[in-house]
Amino acid sequence: MHVYGTHNPRSRYCFQLRPQVANSLKQVFFSKERLVIIMSGITIVIEGSGKHCHVSRETLDTLFGEGFELEVKKWLTQPGQFVTPQKVTVVGPRKSVSLSIIGPCRKADQVELSLTDATSLGFSAPIRESGNISGSPGCKLIGPNGEVEISEGVIIAKRHVHLTPEDAAAFGIVDKQVVKVRVGGERALVFGEVVARVSPEFATYMHVDYDEWNAAALSGQEAIGEIIIE
Amino acid sequence: MHVYGTHNPRSRYCFQLRPQVANSLKQVFFSKERLVIIMSGITIVIEGSGKHCHVSRETLDTLFGEGFELEVKKWLTQPGQFVTPQKVTVVGPRKSVSLSIIGPCRKADQVELSLTDATSLGFSAPIRESGNISGSPGCKLIGPNGEVEISEGVIIAKRHVHLTPEDAAAFGIVDKQVVKVRVGGERALVFGEVVARVSPEFATYMHVDYDEWNAAALSGQEAIGEIIIE
Repeated sequence: MHVYGTHNPRSRYCFQLRPQVANSLKQVFFSKERLVIIMSGITIVIEGSGKHCHVSRETLDTLFGEGFELEVKKWLTQPGQFVTPQKVTVVGPRKSVSLSIIGPCRKADQVELSLTDATSLGFSAPIRESGNISGSPGCKLIGPNGEVEISEGVIIAKRHVHLTPEDAAAFGIVDKQVVKVRVGGERALVFGEVVARVSPEFATYMHVDYDEWNAAALSGQEAIGEIIIE
Repeated sequence: MHVYGTHNPRSRYCFQLRPQVANSLKQVFFSKERLVIIMSGITIVIEGSGKHCHVSRETLDTLFGEGFELEVKKWLTQPGQFVTPQKVTVVGPRKSVSLSIIGPCRKADQVELSLTDATSLGFSAPIRESGNISGSPGCKLIGPNGEVEISEGVIIAKRHVHLTPEDAAAFGIVDKQVVKVRVGGERALVFGEVVARVSPEFATYMHVDYDEWNAAALSGQEAIGEIIIE
């Protein structure tokens, strides 16, 4: 049983439940002066990640001009991460595509595509955790101020759950642990090979690409999965 | 235990196993003069279906000219079904796309898209079994000889397994039964809500769209699933 409520000082018995929890409530009752909450499992909100790229400070200088600062178009759920209005043309072996940059700058350039995108652009890209780009294909990036040829960095993101250390401890999950996530609905399925990533810099969300999102027919309102630990 | 070998008259003990079976062999041995085959489960070859359309005889007449006959570009695994070189432009609310016609002609026009395709074209299409198009969106179809406005027919195919009556009986599956299919590999997952369709006109194969194919990182050589009956 996991209770992740934040106590509401206006009532001793009022909890504001996080969506991960609220959706898996099965039964709530009092027993021997204790509040008993029975849940169906450990649930997590799922988000779909569209194709995007990350750039280094050095690459940003070349693409957009020395000292250019990325702007914030929309904050993402992971703390400090944001969609920018800045776009880069990624030149694939077969086609090119214009992708949004996700800020802030990172140590290395990285292009994240779905397998459908990669096939369409002509990349034979590996399925990798973010940051693990060794041996992945490179490509040309074109910005308004210049071009950069990256020697590696094109990947298909491995599906993953971001967890705060608190949630990970409560769920009994450790960093790098591989779990499964069950999704219900019209295209119910169980995602295997879901890697858990635990950091105080994260918020607790699952990320899948749009192939995975659509294969499960997820939609914004109901994108909740149940983590299965075996 | 299921044995689906065809007896080879050249040897009493030689079976030519179908790929569905060969891939799930765990152990083969003789016990009390009987051949014992232990398998991991009921396996099935999975195929990815790209976006395509089916047309009625009447629609074909309008799009390609009275009495036009569809040509065979490539035979499909389902008996009598074939990809044609004939293309039709499907006009969506947001974009248009050129799709191959799958022959032969059917009773009703039907456009089958992945959820990714549907979103891109601007259709809000339901996930349906082939042939169940009631209430689905319509669209304009444009051929070299004319246009047809269909009032319904745009669907996202519900994932399904085609089974011969013999295989269905051997597997213990009946027509319309909903099963699960487990896929291994880098993006291992278990597809739920897989509808079984049994007919003497079918060959035993599972069909998924390219969202599902890519979400499971399936590839031609290893696209094998294990049917789970609960």
